[in-house]
Amino acid sequence: MRQIRTDMAMESAREAGDMPGVKVSGWENAGIHVTEVQLTDPDSAQKLGKPVGNYITLESEALRRRDPDARLAMSAMIGEEIARMAGEIGERGAMVVGLGNRMVTPDALGPLTVDKILVTRQIFQELTQYADERLRSVCAMAPGVMGVTGIETAEMLESIVRRIRPGCVVCVDALSARSARRIGAAVQICDTGIQPGSGVGNRRLALNRETLGVEVIAVGMPTVIYAATLARDSFAAAAGREETEAALEQMERELMGAGPGDMIVTPREIDGLIQDSAGMIAMGINRALQPEMSDSEILAMMD
Amino acid sequence: MRQIRTDMAMESAREAGDMPGVKVSGWENAGIHVTEVQLTDPDSAQKLGKPVGNYITLESEALRRRDPDARLAMSAMIGEEIARMAGEIGERGAMVVGLGNRMVTPDALGPLTVDKILVTRQIFQELTQYADERLRSVCAMAPGVMGVTGIETAEMLESIVRRIRPGCVVCVDALSARSARRIGAAVQICDTGIQPGSGVGNRRLALNRETLGVEVIAVGMPTVIYAATLARDSFAAAAGREETEAALEQMERELMGAGPGDMIVTPREIDGLIQDSAGMIAMGINRALQPEMSDSEILAMMD
Amino acid sequence: MRQIRTDMAMESAREAGDMPGVKVSGWENAGIHVTEVQLTDPDSAQKLGKPVGNYITLESEALRRRDPDARLAMSAMIGEEIARMAGEIGERGAMVVGLGNRMVTPDALGPLTVDKILVTRQIFQELTQYADERLRSVCAMAPGVMGVTGIETAEMLESIVRRIRPGCVVCVDALSARSARRIGAAVQICDTGIQPGSGVGNRRLALNRETLGVEVIAVGMPTVIYAATLARDSFAAAAGREETEAALEQMERELMGAGPGDMIVTPREIDGLIQDSAGMIAMGINRALQPEMSDSEILAMMD
Amino acid sequence: MRQIRTDMAMESAREAGDMPGVKVSGWENAGIHVTEVQLTDPDSAQKLGKPVGNYITLESEALRRRDPDARLAMSAMIGEEIARMAGEIGERGAMVVGLGNRMVTPDALGPLTVDKILVTRQIFQELTQYADERLRSVCAMAPGVMGVTGIETAEMLESIVRRIRPGCVVCVDALSARSARRIGAAVQICDTGIQPGSGVGNRRLALNRETLGVEVIAVGMPTVIYAATLARDSFAAAAGREETEAALEQMERELMGAGPGDMIVTPREIDGLIQDSAGMIAMGINRALQPEMSDSEILAMMD
Repeated sequence: MRQIRTDMAMESAREAGDMPGVKVSGWENAGIHVTEVQLTDPDSAQKLGKPVGNYITLESEALRRRDPDARLAMSAMIGEEIARMAGEIGERGAMVVGLGNRMVTPDALGPLTVDKILVTRQIFQELTQYADERLRSVCAMAPGVMGVTGIETAEMLESIVRRIRPGCVVCVDALSARSARRIGAAVQICDTGIQPGSGVGNRRLALNRETLGVEVIAVGMPTVIYAATLARDSFAAAAGREETEAALEQMERELMGAGPGDMIVTPREIDGLIQDSAGMIAMGINRALQPEMSDSEILAMMD
Repeated sequence: MRQIRTDMAMESAREAGDMPGVKVSGWENAGIHVTEVQLTDPDSAQKLGKPVGNYITLESEALRRRDPDARLAMSAMIGEEIARMAGEIGERGAMVVGLGNRMVTPDALGPLTVDKILVTRQIFQELTQYADERLRSVCAMAPGVMGVTGIETAEMLESIVRRIRPGCVVCVDALSARSARRIGAAVQICDTGIQPGSGVGNRRLALNRETLGVEVIAVGMPTVIYAATLARDSFAAAAGREETEAALEQMERELMGAGPGDMIVTPREIDGLIQDSAGMIAMGINRALQPEMSDSEILAMMD
Repeated sequence: MRQIRTDMAMESAREAGDMPGVKVSGWENAGIHVTEVQLTDPDSAQKLGKPVGNYITLESEALRRRDPDARLAMSAMIGEEIARMAGEIGERGAMVVGLGNRMVTPDALGPLTVDKILVTRQIFQELTQYADERLRSVCAMAPGVMGVTGIETAEMLESIVRRIRPGCVVCVDALSARSARRIGAAVQICDTGIQPGSGVGNRRLALNRETLGVEVIAVGMPTVIYAATLARDSFAAAAGREETEAALEQMERELMGAGPGDMIVTPREIDGLIQDSAGMIAMGINRALQPEMSDSEILAMMD
Repeated sequence: MRQIRTDMAMESAREAGDMPGVKVSGWENAGIHVTEVQLTDPDSAQKLGKPVGNYITLESEALRRRDPDARLAMSAMIGEEIARMAGEIGERGAMVVGLGNRMVTPDALGPLTVDKILVTRQIFQELTQYADERLRSVCAMAPGVMGVTGIETAEMLESIVRRIRPGCVVCVDALSARSARRIGAAVQICDTGIQPGSGVGNRRLALNRETLGVEVIAVGMPTVIYAATLARDSFAAAAGREETEAALEQMERELMGAGPGDMIVTPREIDGLIQDSAGMIAMGINRALQPEMSDSEILAMMD
């Protein structure tokens, strides 16, 4: 099997079909389609190009119509899944990390989400008289990308995480998908952290328990399809298997020959979609990290 | 012939092959490939979906590598072509119009270009003591898009142009292309104005001598390929003619079914490419509209 | 009496004291302090440097603490006052105009407010099948400033308003005040339109019934104090009347001598304050212009 | 002596007059006024509220008129002064840090400067085949402010600097001044690093050789005057010494009573001024850190 470029575990697992140690299950909840991939076998994991772990994908087509109710339902479920994976947020609190490049629209999901996180750690550090005992300590940063800072994201985060010592890290990243229907309409939450080569910005090193020393939960939304992947899929669907791999590769080369940097496929309304999604994901994370605060208390504290 | 969605006259003309009243010629100049389409026959024009007129396309692959020398050469040639089409800029001066939506990255080329135009009309209106006699009167605006303002672009421009009465209008717009190689690497300049349905934002009404009452020169750069067009082309190239139109149309429907709004293909680095291109096009327009000012005088006045 | 530079009618009227045809009254409503200035005498109007008309100022100190409840109460009252002045929004609908320069933070209130207006006119023009009969036709634009476009705002608006023929125009502008306590904490609504020389960007020509041909309601929030005005006031308060005008003028000259352009006084958090205020004012305008739609229906339509 | 709030060592030193271990000297160079403060006595340093060290201030009134030639001359001299303080940039290279809050215009100087730094460290880390032996390794980051990230700037930088181990750190920060004439028209360069309480964002902890373990050069431009400082100065100048401290303090309280957060005084054109200044300072830093590259080579590499 030749790999298709996607960061969605459910797409890779479905493409691969039955494999040992790969369990895919699905259900509906409040209008949201949930798919869970439980990946327990290291060999299968390697074949799928994903680390061993649990991957939840939440999908709602109404998000693409920018339906506010769908966003609310989605952020509630994102919050529940993160809370389930993160467990109790103790005294060490959490760090939220927005991966990607703020200046590249489809890669800006992480930084824009971080802008909307309720950050409270400074209250515990400096303004202890204002600390509400129901609050958890949360800090947040967008480390930028290596092409802009000259510093590898993992290198920067490792040194800060080892200093700050949060109880867990929640990473937010823009992803690539294989199906156009999932762009802006699906959120993947997993307990494996971020693996090398994933994300729109192609992270170089892993961000996980081994590299950062704490639990790393990754939250991502597909914002692009690589054009070569789309063409390959369209072609395969229409022309059948008898078209050779050689023809497919030639097509890819042509597409990639358009210049430096990949060609990506996005909805035309990607700027608005990223803004909406950043707010929705941030609200989910805020709920998960501040379980004793109400939504309106969280909003009031952010103003 | 079923139409392929592109705003580039050279792509439409080449696809169509020999037609009466369609002359395509090409040459190299200072590392830039120039293609001229002279469209004189109304029937052919209708078949190509482009108005009768002259279309110059300037192409430089080095633009995609963000080569500053290529940008300089390109802006010089853009300036020359606009100057040739616009003729003498008389006392009535010129108006530069940036079409498109500033908030949608691949559609923001026009508004961002307008930000870098040397605007001088206020000097002639109010500060006449500062007016350098070598200056021409230039005003500039970005009227926004109907979905955002509720006002059709042609409606807004017509009323302002009839009030301001510039000698000519230069419109800047983001375009769609068919070939990935032209995204960010080609500029089309034509004396036909803007036709309905063209541009990334799909202008609804024409902007030309008939609707605005003055000469309208259109300058555009392709920033997207419609995903359906890309898939169609890739498919046709690989599978040959024997694949039916029915199969192609089914594929398009699948792609379009991803949600409201079109799926577009852009380079991942589109934000930076649009910024660079806006500066390059603005410099070309500034040169054409201020023929007696040097580049450094123009830059100094803009600070 | 030497004039103090402020766009707030209540500050000018209070400074002037008793004058014929100037009635100042005040009351509290839902935690908001309301001041009404009724200016009926043309001579007094000229002395105050404000046109004859009615001026309502709403003030809430809690806005500066970015209290979300205060913003809600304020937007409700802004909506009521605009609705009262605008009267019935008939078939011709309304046009919202955001004055000022989007690129100059304290002058960006108008353009940022316009970004959050529910624009519906395109539905009536093109998508009549989707038109809810409870909707009113609203269009919106931010015409920019003369220094950037080369086109006088009044010139641009007059030609468009005469073409579009809305039933009324609502202009939003950033204002100067005299008291630091009102920056970001007060909103002035008046039925006189915009007068020359007012606003942070110093509009050059009037925007009112005479120039635009329809009723013009102006909504403004003070975002700056001119530094010279602040120094003058501080000085007068501390030193008493015996300090001469000559000394005051020398001080002003020193301040103004710092460079081209005025020195302004703003809160350090002005960027966030402008964003919050734009949302609050837009919500008030949306309510006034769509009296049959609920808040949640308005929000859902804007997504 | 009661302290006036300014980050400019030359203003503090002049206010204080003759003190042991404080040497102030000045000269002109290429139209730029240079003031050097050599602060060698710890007691005097404490009285002035500045660390022992050398402070160079470069001033050019033409900057406020946005004169491009003045910007070029200034960036050349900034480059020379940084190069002189930094000494040889060896194999460990340099890290440029942009302090302040990108979302608060007068505090955004640091982050915006970092956007224009030529970042090369990734070439040495990953793309060694492209490394020009004349290049020095430079990385750059904008760590944000504690109110936004929940992480103290010094805490974040210390952990990263100790990991990356650059040969020196260059910090860029927006400053407060006492004189309106210096806003946007002066640059201070010093070898003392950043002290607590300085900068528009009021850094909490020092960034210097002691905390970061390497040489720290600080580059700053005044972008604001605190309104209370301005009023105090205006008052003192006009009213003479007989006005009591009590009256001054009352005035300050009134000003500060306007709401949470300080009131600041800036030029109205602050957004454009910050953009210009960021480019000018970045060019100076790029020259200092890449002594073997020409300006045009640096620009070409940044595209």
